[in-house]
Amino acid sequence: MTTNTDATTITLPWASDFHCHLRQGPMMETVTPMVEQGGVRTVLAMPNLTPPLTTADMAVEYGKSLQKLAPDVHFILTLYLNPKLTPDEIKKAAASGITAVKVYPSGVTTNSEWGVLDFKAYYPTFSAMQDAGMVLCLHGECPSDASKGICILNAEERFLSTLRELHQEFPRLRIVLEHATTKAAVDCVKSLGETVACTITAHHLYITIDDWAGHPHHFCKPVAKYPHDRDALREVVKSGHPRFFLGSDSAPHPRSAKQGEKPAAGVFTTPVLIPLMVSLFESMGCLDKLEGFISSHGRKFYGLSEKPSGSITLTRAPFKVPTMYTIAGSDQGDGGATVVPFMAETEIPWSITRTE
Amino acid sequence: MTTNTDATTITLPWASDFHCHLRQGPMMETVTPMVEQGGVRTVLAMPNLTPPLTTADMAVEYGKSLQKLAPDVHFILTLYLNPKLTPDEIKKAAASGITAVKVYPSGVTTNSEWGVLDFKAYYPTFSAMQDAGMVLCLHGECPSDASKGICILNAEERFLSTLRELHQEFPRLRIVLEHATTKAAVDCVKSLGETVACTITAHHLYITIDDWAGHPHHFCKPVAKYPHDRDALREVVKSGHPRFFLGSDSAPHPRSAKQGEKPAAGVFTTPVLIPLMVSLFESMGCLDKLEGFISSHGRKFYGLSEKPSGSITLTRAPFKVPTMYTIAGSDQGDGGATVVPFMAETEIPWSITRTE
Repeated sequence: MTTNTDATTITLPWASDFHCHLRQGPMMETVTPMVEQGGVRTVLAMPNLTPPLTTADMAVEYGKSLQKLAPDVHFILTLYLNPKLTPDEIKKAAASGITAVKVYPSGVTTNSEWGVLDFKAYYPTFSAMQDAGMVLCLHGECPSDASKGICILNAEERFLSTLRELHQEFPRLRIVLEHATTKAAVDCVKSLGETVACTITAHHLYITIDDWAGHPHHFCKPVAKYPHDRDALREVVKSGHPRFFLGSDSAPHPRSAKQGEKPAAGVFTTPVLIPLMVSLFESMGCLDKLEGFISSHGRKFYGLSEKPSGSITLTRAPFKVPTMYTIAGSDQGDGGATVVPFMAETEIPWSITRTE
Repeated sequence: MTTNTDATTITLPWASDFHCHLRQGPMMETVTPMVEQGGVRTVLAMPNLTPPLTTADMAVEYGKSLQKLAPDVHFILTLYLNPKLTPDEIKKAAASGITAVKVYPSGVTTNSEWGVLDFKAYYPTFSAMQDAGMVLCLHGECPSDASKGICILNAEERFLSTLRELHQEFPRLRIVLEHATTKAAVDCVKSLGETVACTITAHHLYITIDDWAGHPHHFCKPVAKYPHDRDALREVVKSGHPRFFLGSDSAPHPRSAKQGEKPAAGVFTTPVLIPLMVSLFESMGCLDKLEGFISSHGRKFYGLSEKPSGSITLTRAPFKVPTMYTIAGSDQGDGGATVVPFMAETEIPWSITRTE
């Protein structure tokens, strides 16, 4: 990172986002070109489509669709863990350039109804992934079950024993605990070996439970939690820990699905991602840790070249986050389908003013 | 309570609801007649109107408006704690038949922007209330403050030291900790003297945090919390503890205010209140504790006649809670303003089939 003397501009490598929902159909056509707009050129695309990406061929086809929409972006492809992912299919997937397999425990978030109930049933798959050098991405929550005292507040902490077991059983398997939201998760990942990393979203560094209660555009899974949990996320980021890096979990839904009787879970940060990060790291007084968090830590863990080519330059030129974006193919204006970004209508101190 | 031999009917005294928002204007005209529909004929009406009820005269006038809408209901009138409530005004209020004073810490819920920041400043008022035999009703939450680690999850627990102090300072003052949502609050009230009681809502006996996350019609303040907190509420109710009783905190908002960018806090239970209670107490196997909870415990604490005249009879005849109710003066149908009840469109096993 280079900053000019009076810190009115900052130049960074294009960022990497190791967890992003790019959807399909018109929403995909809308948000995929916004990846670069947000300062990102490497993005790990989630497989929880309808139907989910369950085979190597499906993921490869999806990658082609994304590539057409953003030719300069490097898409990291993933598969949705499912019974079709035999050790043979894992070999095929690895040979097809697919990097990671995503695990959703059943029923914890959008399109997780095909998710996993029993991790042990997948040990042969994990073993094949370990041998093939693939990455296991975990949505780290237990399904809520009031009879066991499990709810969305402790679902992540209750999952950590599973993370420990998987790491113990497959010590060479690279595992990413995604979108950590609790001090317990941060402490757990720190305590584990070099093959276990953790992504943190932009929004979980900004908000706590008070911000999503009564605010559906801030509602996501895992939910943002206590102030001390947010403090723990901020502290580990400020420490520059190399196994913690950006995975935005940007998850667009049509505005109508967010504002209604049962708002969908997901916060949409893609078009403003790196301006959000620069602004936050500046406010935390740790701009020196920014490049590691938004780029090099994750690239190293995923085995990518440490510095991608090109750069983005941000200027201390406040910009107002749009109220909403029109979804591709929809009418403009109030009658059209729209998607609302995180921090809509608020001013962010930094904006991207040049890319190379 | 009398039940017939095969328990297909239950006859109870008209219930008492010691915490209810009856609003003003068209919403008041809509919901006040529903008090009886829900099985209630004694109702403590909250003073957080716009503007709030800050003087005895205002409360008396409000009581007249309510009485016109429901001539057979006994309205217990309250005042909103504020600097106008001098010891002299308290004497006047007591002489006017006003029973209680409500305290909102500043900023914790609907229309609490006029709320209290410093309880000690009101000690002369509390002293006058103690002498006049008035009841202090507490919205028991500290305002959220991330720098102090306070959020909506621990705001109630953090308030309990204030409750203890008030009770110690004014041991003869009757205090009600309203809408308890946590095990900590239940334990605290149990540990205090005979002048401290606690209301519990219907919805907090039904739901936990998972039920309001992504469901704005279940969102209220204080928010429903962990399964173990709900367990504690259910256990104290099942125990028949005489200082715990029903205060529904039914809080209607127009549907448009609940389904939008920033849903208002409040769950609307008035029209289905006692059917909800009978159904829940049956499922908990403690129908023998029902009459105490919905009537006699609270009446005794508030110094009312222990049994009101008349009765309601419920029959095990399932009914479907309406999708919504049209607000008075509004057009019928989709274009009109409506209010959505708790458990809309779900079936409740018991319904009120006769009143006397």
